[in-house]
Amino acid sequence: MDDCIFCQIGQTQADTHLYSDERCFVIRDIAPSAPTHLLVIPRQHVTSLQAADPAQEVLLSHLITIAEQMARQEQVHQSGYRLVINQGRDAGQGVDHLHLHVLGGKQLPPLG
Amino acid sequence: MDDCIFCQIGQTQADTHLYSDERCFVIRDIAPSAPTHLLVIPRQHVTSLQAADPAQEVLLSHLITIAEQMARQEQVHQSGYRLVINQGRDAGQGVDHLHLHVLGGKQLPPLG
Repeated sequence: MDDCIFCQIGQTQADTHLYSDERCFVIRDIAPSAPTHLLVIPRQHVTSLQAADPAQEVLLSHLITIAEQMARQEQVHQSGYRLVINQGRDAGQGVDHLHLHVLGGKQLPPLG
Repeated sequence: MDDCIFCQIGQTQADTHLYSDERCFVIRDIAPSAPTHLLVIPRQHVTSLQAADPAQEVLLSHLITIAEQMARQEQVHQSGYRLVINQGRDAGQGVDHLHLHVLGGKQLPPLG
């Protein structure tokens, strides 16, 4: 998608990628909410979670695997970290392209 | 695990399950942080995310699929919802048995 910031970053800003493979890439959130705040972003322009989509299920499990690896790399694996997918308005989804947040490096706030 | 509250709820409190299959069940959080606050809990006593565990990857994608279905059932699919996995101390993980939070029904707070 030409007008999607995450599609653009995936295609053109490889220098900002902490990790990259053929299915996803990882960047730091530009407005971090914690000392570690990474975004695991699929290269495919997926806008929302769709139940019972086998291809998406495989993609999601890959994103979580990469998130867990990045938590180790950032050394928040022992202290703890939070994985978040924001979906839609009430969640404050900032970019309309599915992404997984990895937060850690401080005591994170309550969920509600 | 005999001393794990989620293992116990999975085995004995079927009346509290909003959804149930052979791999997971869904309950309402006893101390909800939002009007909709569900927990999608694997029946297997998994304590933490482990990268590169193919069986766990399949399980995680199933949990997310069920979470998305429950968001529809709770009618927060259009207004938006947040999926969260808390891992360890800094995330405030409350029960040492992997689980996925589904939050919705109000404007959710910032991540940090």
